[in-house]
Amino acid sequence: MNNIMKSTTITAISTAPGIGGIAVIRVSGENALTFSDAIYVPKNKSCPLLQQEASTVSFGNVVDKQQVDIDEVLVTVFRAPHSFTGEDTVEISCHGSLFVQQKILQLLLEQGCVLAGPGEFTQRAFMNGKMDLSQAEAVADLIASNSASSHRMAMNQMRGGFSNELLKLRTQLLNFVSLIELELDFNEEDVEFADRSKLRSLATDIEQLIAGLADSFRVGNALKNGIPVALVGETNVGKSTLLNVLLNEEKAIVSEIHGTTRDVVEDLVNIEGITFRFIDTAGIRDTKDKIESMGIERTYQKIEQASIILWIVDCTQLTEHMEWLTERIAKRAEGKKVILVFNKIDKIAEDEREVLDQLFQQFEGDRIYISAKDRINTEGLQKALVIAAQLPTINPGDVVVNNVRHYEALQNALSSIRRVTDGIDNGITGDFLSQDIRECMHFLGEITGAISNDEILGNIFGKFCIGK
Amino acid sequence: MNNIMKSTTITAISTAPGIGGIAVIRVSGENALTFSDAIYVPKNKSCPLLQQEASTVSFGNVVDKQQVDIDEVLVTVFRAPHSFTGEDTVEISCHGSLFVQQKILQLLLEQGCVLAGPGEFTQRAFMNGKMDLSQAEAVADLIASNSASSHRMAMNQMRGGFSNELLKLRTQLLNFVSLIELELDFNEEDVEFADRSKLRSLATDIEQLIAGLADSFRVGNALKNGIPVALVGETNVGKSTLLNVLLNEEKAIVSEIHGTTRDVVEDLVNIEGITFRFIDTAGIRDTKDKIESMGIERTYQKIEQASIILWIVDCTQLTEHMEWLTERIAKRAEGKKVILVFNKIDKIAEDEREVLDQLFQQFEGDRIYISAKDRINTEGLQKALVIAAQLPTINPGDVVVNNVRHYEALQNALSSIRRVTDGIDNGITGDFLSQDIRECMHFLGEITGAISNDEILGNIFGKFCIGK
Repeated sequence: MNNIMKSTTITAISTAPGIGGIAVIRVSGENALTFSDAIYVPKNKSCPLLQQEASTVSFGNVVDKQQVDIDEVLVTVFRAPHSFTGEDTVEISCHGSLFVQQKILQLLLEQGCVLAGPGEFTQRAFMNGKMDLSQAEAVADLIASNSASSHRMAMNQMRGGFSNELLKLRTQLLNFVSLIELELDFNEEDVEFADRSKLRSLATDIEQLIAGLADSFRVGNALKNGIPVALVGETNVGKSTLLNVLLNEEKAIVSEIHGTTRDVVEDLVNIEGITFRFIDTAGIRDTKDKIESMGIERTYQKIEQASIILWIVDCTQLTEHMEWLTERIAKRAEGKKVILVFNKIDKIAEDEREVLDQLFQQFEGDRIYISAKDRINTEGLQKALVIAAQLPTINPGDVVVNNVRHYEALQNALSSIRRVTDGIDNGITGDFLSQDIRECMHFLGEITGAISNDEILGNIFGKFCIGK
Repeated sequence: MNNIMKSTTITAISTAPGIGGIAVIRVSGENALTFSDAIYVPKNKSCPLLQQEASTVSFGNVVDKQQVDIDEVLVTVFRAPHSFTGEDTVEISCHGSLFVQQKILQLLLEQGCVLAGPGEFTQRAFMNGKMDLSQAEAVADLIASNSASSHRMAMNQMRGGFSNELLKLRTQLLNFVSLIELELDFNEEDVEFADRSKLRSLATDIEQLIAGLADSFRVGNALKNGIPVALVGETNVGKSTLLNVLLNEEKAIVSEIHGTTRDVVEDLVNIEGITFRFIDTAGIRDTKDKIESMGIERTYQKIEQASIILWIVDCTQLTEHMEWLTERIAKRAEGKKVILVFNKIDKIAEDEREVLDQLFQQFEGDRIYISAKDRINTEGLQKALVIAAQLPTINPGDVVVNNVRHYEALQNALSSIRRVTDGIDNGITGDFLSQDIRECMHFLGEITGAISNDEILGNIFGKFCIGK
């Protein structure tokens, strides 16, 4: 930890912004107790804050410089290293008035506290060895988690499951590189301490492990940021109505994600614990209008970005363009789940439905019949989405990568370890092998923070909310 | 406290809604400890929650029924009667994720907790004699306080300043009525234990005290809900521009009041610790348009409701209607502070300004020269507003009534005590005197909750936020 951080005592409102029953203001650092003591008068005057035992709560008043009462508060004292940050920490639980929160914060700043930057409490926890970097990142993920699966991923990561896996890999690599480097010491003698075939098999195991972790990113990212679902179809087939139905029905359990760890994302819906990110698109039709064409072009792009495509067809409007449209969507939807959604099903007769099925007999994916407007079978559509998501269940202890930074480091580690395998196959010399292994270890170390720099730290903690 | 309340254990998220670094979930009631214990595994397994000492914090995990970790939390234990509610209380400080907050709440509900109603924690504090009713109401005011003055009023009231004053009054009345009722016991003998002239002087003192308290409501209400300022003038003189300037410049320190103790109020601005409620109005002009006339009629009503009127005049547009307008505003502004605001002052020459002053020489109130668009002298206008507000400074310990319920009770008490004074003057018999005094005591008791009923309590606590 650098000296500037060590000498400052930080403070912030740690609870959600706004008015609540109570709010909590956190103070952490060398002077957390003295600064807090200066603005606090306990009801039990025989036990001033400085003498308050660690992990106990006292009741008293926050007062300003004129000893005027600002609020009745509960004050909890934690002493280094037994606190979240590993430093002396005071938590002031006050009434949740905006005025009171700001006033107490101001009094602490006047004493000499500095306002904590985003994630600075967690950063200090990392700096003081209370957690590694991937665990610190999991704290932010946990706070932003809005579904059972994203919550479980964050909890697993916060508990160190991910770091443990990486630690195992690094230890294996260290054994590997030690043997190779031992050979280098005896360079003149042309010995081989490391059995190349054993080493190759070890490298392959490690490669598979890293590749497995990197692969889990597809799932992890989908769970964290939502599975992209594009709503596609001709104009006026009811795309937007369906979108509203999907969003409204679930609005109560959808949380808009505020700018805690990412930018504001809209239109996220949580269905059976899986987050879907619904993307409305411009209707596709043959047009000469330049602006409309651009919109349609963007629709194609969105189809390519999506994992699931809801292809919406108006049962009452089976136009002659259907074939033309089939071509266009099919071409871009290759390798993706496509669900054919027949909308306005209540508007046609049973025999017309047969005609419909005939028309789409070539289509091999799921088909579902709904009325978005009258909410007929929209639950069925939700179930079809959950099945289409095909995400494995995340169990407690499962290691899933859901962080772009980790994913990139793992990809880099993968390239390095593959160079190692290739090197062995091609009889490369020990010094080059050693270099590739060290590189692989470096990238794995980046994830846990064993290797870190200010830029990386700034990027990670800058995305936290203030007060954590 | 009724039995139903006694047997239930309530829970709620007590911090502001939304995502934060941390959130606090409160549990209070007979089973607070056992219900919390069922979902909590402390890191230090040798100290289970049920054995945790009062006013201490422990660190551990909230787990679900399958013992899967939901979050790492801090748990604070309070034991009856040493808690806010006076009951056993557990505060769970968890990560501020919406998912985690909801999940923990749900686990507590599964254990047998019931969701706390608005203000139910404070209501229990009242029921358990931890505070009187006016103090409980002050808790809600404190949470809603958004300026130094509204905060100070709430703090004074929460500390019981108000209740103490009322207690003194009731004690004096009790002495009074005891003597009278003693006389009644000796009814046959026609004695007078109570010296009527002394009693009359006492009644007058009490009357003055109550009247003073009731009078403070004008100030208290203005401080709490904002001093109503109407922006009035002809059409297109720059009213809306000025309003925006007044609102924008101060937006950072304005807080929209969320529905904690009152409905959402907009356009509140805090200037030097005083809250102003700015009211834009339709421009006044002679019109035959029916709808416009209705708008102008509403403007007149708003003038009547306002305490301060900003009469805005466009320097460059001194129409012949000026006299007509003067008449209309002056008529309705009687007894109110009127500030004449010359807008667009940068658009006219020095000599034109003299013409202007001439035109308005009849006007006796303050006048101020600004340009709303170029923000010339808008600070001067703010200062003029603070002076016009003419509110006495509220000092720590000052008793100010700011609650409509209290005001009404005080008004009723005032009527009763006046009937007492009149009664003495008219030689009314002791039994009637006694009845009026008892009535006065009843109304004062309503404020502190010495006299209360379910309807009153429902009204008071229903306005609280959940979790307090």
